[in-house]
Amino acid sequence: MKNSDIQACLFDVFGTVVDWRTSVSRDLAAFAAEKGFAGIDWVQFAVDWRKLYQPSMEEVRSGRRPWTILDALHRESLLRLLERYRIDGRLSAVEIDYMNRAWHRLDPWPDVVEGLARLKRKLVIAPCSNGNIALIVNMAKRAGLPWDCVLGAETAHAYKPLPEAYLASCRQLGLAPVQVMMVAAHNGDLQAAKAQGLATAFVPRPREHGPGQTSDLSADRSCVDLAAESFVDLAVQLGC
Amino acid sequence: MKNSDIQACLFDVFGTVVDWRTSVSRDLAAFAAEKGFAGIDWVQFAVDWRKLYQPSMEEVRSGRRPWTILDALHRESLLRLLERYRIDGRLSAVEIDYMNRAWHRLDPWPDVVEGLARLKRKLVIAPCSNGNIALIVNMAKRAGLPWDCVLGAETAHAYKPLPEAYLASCRQLGLAPVQVMMVAAHNGDLQAAKAQGLATAFVPRPREHGPGQTSDLSADRSCVDLAAESFVDLAVQLGC
Repeated sequence: MKNSDIQACLFDVFGTVVDWRTSVSRDLAAFAAEKGFAGIDWVQFAVDWRKLYQPSMEEVRSGRRPWTILDALHRESLLRLLERYRIDGRLSAVEIDYMNRAWHRLDPWPDVVEGLARLKRKLVIAPCSNGNIALIVNMAKRAGLPWDCVLGAETAHAYKPLPEAYLASCRQLGLAPVQVMMVAAHNGDLQAAKAQGLATAFVPRPREHGPGQTSDLSADRSCVDLAAESFVDLAVQLGC
Repeated sequence: MKNSDIQACLFDVFGTVVDWRTSVSRDLAAFAAEKGFAGIDWVQFAVDWRKLYQPSMEEVRSGRRPWTILDALHRESLLRLLERYRIDGRLSAVEIDYMNRAWHRLDPWPDVVEGLARLKRKLVIAPCSNGNIALIVNMAKRAGLPWDCVLGAETAHAYKPLPEAYLASCRQLGLAPVQVMMVAAHNGDLQAAKAQGLATAFVPRPREHGPGQTSDLSADRSCVDLAAESFVDLAVQLGC
């Protein structure tokens, strides 16, 4: 890979661009305080919600279920959790929709907005996320993420790490995979992108899963072309 | 329609956001001057190219042809024209691709960038164009069009004025049609959007087809909710 070949960067979003664990738990705790719910560990709730994420997408990936956007999968998982936490009877459909859209209100890591602004000067920047378009658009408006367009699972009709999620995103940009760099804090995502011929960059997010995180602490050099400390460092390394 | 219901504006692009006639002809004339081609009326060439636009999409709309992006349709039309103008033998594939991407290098009307920036403060703004994603993204980067995301024919897999082009765009934003305003300089586009329940705004572009234009000089009140003089006026009328 030559850095000068790269025309576009695609970004994983949950964990790489935004801090879902802190944001979801804070958002739900604020909602619960307004509603007068007490005694719930909202960090654990957020973690439990996220645990249902891969299994819910796997139903779609496997073909057992027709194409379904993440907002709908998130809402089904939320309903299961509300029952498990015994708060399902106390919420209206509108309130459940509000809670579900906690995923539209995630905060970026501190280096993200500046890094994306720099990268955007020279390159096309787009998410390649499993989040659906509305989720990513609402998040971007709130957080000031200056995407050139929104790509990913909904435009590909395929959830990462299926090859089509990466390949459709390159095709939609009119670029060959070798001209596109996938950026993620997860080596598995980069391994899948690299297998399709994309360039890859790793940015560590060692607090995504809270203190004591043991996974994805550093780049797996077998599939990572470029290791950066932050989005700003990535911009510098790509000459932006 | 109440203006306060509107959460997003979708925009027609060719003619409404950008001046394709002047831009394509100027771009091709500059290329021809570099190449040493003389004696071709590039305004007429641009108009002839545009005349092949609707028939080429109709093949896809009718189902006679599988889904095909506009860059590919444009290129086929270009090859026909190069033959008609007897310049086909003098160009390499790379040069033909460059000419084809004249549609990626269109200039906006003078009110567009300011108007979009104002609208974006309060609303989601996205193209709902028959142009493919790469075309719209490259155009936006060059012209400074601050879209929140890129929607339209390629994300809907349907060319306007088919209902799905409008309905998929609303769905992808997570909004009901009544919450979305279609903005165009073409009454036919607005009529199709209105038939699907979207709100509609007309912005006149009386020089799109050059001096002496006779069509779309004013809003058809049977399908237009809001008539604006410019994108800036549209922003003002929507309270942005």
